[in-house]
Amino acid sequence: MVGEDGAWPPRATPLEVKAYMASRLDDIERYLEEQLAIGQHPEVLKAIAYYPSAGGKRLRPVLTLAVADAVSPGSSWRALPFGCGLELVHNFTLIHDDLMDKDSVRRGRPTLHTVWNEASAINAGDILFALSFEVMTRTEADDATVRTLVQEAARTVFEIGEGQQWDMDFEEVEPGGVTEAEYLRMVEFKTARLFEMAAKGGARVAGADDALTEAMGMFAREMGIGFQIWDDYLDIFADQDKLGKDVGSDIRNGKHTIMAIRTLGSAGAEDRATFLQAFGNVEATGEEMEAAIDVMQRTGAIDHARSMAEDYAARAEDRLRALPPSEHREFLRGLIHYMIARDH
Amino acid sequence: MVGEDGAWPPRATPLEVKAYMASRLDDIERYLEEQLAIGQHPEVLKAIAYYPSAGGKRLRPVLTLAVADAVSPGSSWRALPFGCGLELVHNFTLIHDDLMDKDSVRRGRPTLHTVWNEASAINAGDILFALSFEVMTRTEADDATVRTLVQEAARTVFEIGEGQQWDMDFEEVEPGGVTEAEYLRMVEFKTARLFEMAAKGGARVAGADDALTEAMGMFAREMGIGFQIWDDYLDIFADQDKLGKDVGSDIRNGKHTIMAIRTLGSAGAEDRATFLQAFGNVEATGEEMEAAIDVMQRTGAIDHARSMAEDYAARAEDRLRALPPSEHREFLRGLIHYMIARDH
Repeated sequence: MVGEDGAWPPRATPLEVKAYMASRLDDIERYLEEQLAIGQHPEVLKAIAYYPSAGGKRLRPVLTLAVADAVSPGSSWRALPFGCGLELVHNFTLIHDDLMDKDSVRRGRPTLHTVWNEASAINAGDILFALSFEVMTRTEADDATVRTLVQEAARTVFEIGEGQQWDMDFEEVEPGGVTEAEYLRMVEFKTARLFEMAAKGGARVAGADDALTEAMGMFAREMGIGFQIWDDYLDIFADQDKLGKDVGSDIRNGKHTIMAIRTLGSAGAEDRATFLQAFGNVEATGEEMEAAIDVMQRTGAIDHARSMAEDYAARAEDRLRALPPSEHREFLRGLIHYMIARDH
Repeated sequence: MVGEDGAWPPRATPLEVKAYMASRLDDIERYLEEQLAIGQHPEVLKAIAYYPSAGGKRLRPVLTLAVADAVSPGSSWRALPFGCGLELVHNFTLIHDDLMDKDSVRRGRPTLHTVWNEASAINAGDILFALSFEVMTRTEADDATVRTLVQEAARTVFEIGEGQQWDMDFEEVEPGGVTEAEYLRMVEFKTARLFEMAAKGGARVAGADDALTEAMGMFAREMGIGFQIWDDYLDIFADQDKLGKDVGSDIRNGKHTIMAIRTLGSAGAEDRATFLQAFGNVEATGEEMEAAIDVMQRTGAIDHARSMAEDYAARAEDRLRALPPSEHREFLRGLIHYMIARDH
């Protein structure tokens, strides 16, 4: 399958992207609800449904379905179990991440381990993890494809764990102790690999050859990395109401984002001292925060991050040339820009 | 495949059982070591190998291999990845169980979360869980068989989690608040199902039909339940040195074993009061413990548990009639009695 190389047709607008995602939700919600009901311990069933039932955009299954239909129109129903399995993987990691981070609130609701307790949260995460793999085996594809998908998905979860460990490692490091390459690898493993798997799964189930499957994986990986860099950028520049959390909290928490790494690596001694007044100082004043952001701006760290995110977006979009034109492809193109140039 | 119905040939003696298990260890250890080395985060690789490298009898993969060869001599090498995958499942549950129970020692070594920390232990367990499923997909069988095995193994882990939750629930219940049926279901899910899956996996990979696969699963499930009941019995009657933990600790911890459930359900008011002096009382004196055990004996609760374990052993052995005679079958018969009539 060879796509065109020249000018693109119009990509989906943000409104069209939202409408496309909404059109996929019914199937996804119904399937998830059905799969989450199979078991014998009533309280366990309540606990494992607690996060999935809180809603969300279901980005991973939407990605699986859209890629499947973009590769072979009408094939997406066969990939539904795989996409939903990855959504359950995502939810199990949220349960355990909240516990590891000792977070008490997620999307405005108390986290699972505060509603139940830590032991039940560890256990509920494990059970949801098990369910995710059971669900994946129900994918409507030949046995060889399902075997490959399960193997790749298992390695993906392994790598998500490695990414999570790097992320936790970075919290113990002194300012400037993380390189850009290390940060990018962490993001790739912790966040982007699951998007990558979602897209590859859709492609494989739809019958894509190895080259096209790989291209779809790279598109989603690059979109995922760009998304995280953009998310870090928004932490500084988003409208606080839209973001739903305190602007600048990454700086106060001493998080080694692309921007912080670049600032710490390139600022002169005085600027660096100014930046460190706020970086990793949860009690930094508004004035100290402004001065720190000013340093990030003057060192070019913010432009660097912004253009890096845009670069990932452009590379991701270019991968989609491997697909024939279709509303699904144009949705995927729109999704990249929805995720990476968004202001909320 | 139909086995004989009459007298058994001699079963493996305890010494022969040990020798058979030892003869399987090299392959298992080599394979586990190889699979545990694939990854990129050095500290993660150390953490996930910490429990598996502490040794152990490798009961689950031994079961897989012995059943495979009992069904079809020479086929066990094809089932090695599946058995080792289940061994990794077992080890991941140990990491998370130790954390849920806040245990600080396992087999004389500090538990994983005390060597690293709680967050890294949650994460290492998750990663080992992911690895276990990746390893299972390497089983040397046709794709349809592997797909079925992965699906069944995922449901098995789901049920282990339900069993773990019931076990935790029972700790919150007043004395006598657990029925024998509830206890048996908990043991079946938390402990026996993984043995069941190990045996079924060996059978399936060796080409057993559904009836024989089911018989092998039931053999291992019944052996697993009998093993746990016997283990509870040993808590009271084992030689302390051989057991490696305090005799009677289940009574002091108020654990609802078959014996405790029966005692609480059948003792008269005075005996019940005597029993409750020790049950759930971590500070019970030696005298109070002796009086409690005396009540358990007089109410017939101990004989009941002992004969129940023996009954499970007999039923498990009977399942093995579905197999043709072989050293592997005679090992499996010996294993039942090694696990259930053992005094250590």
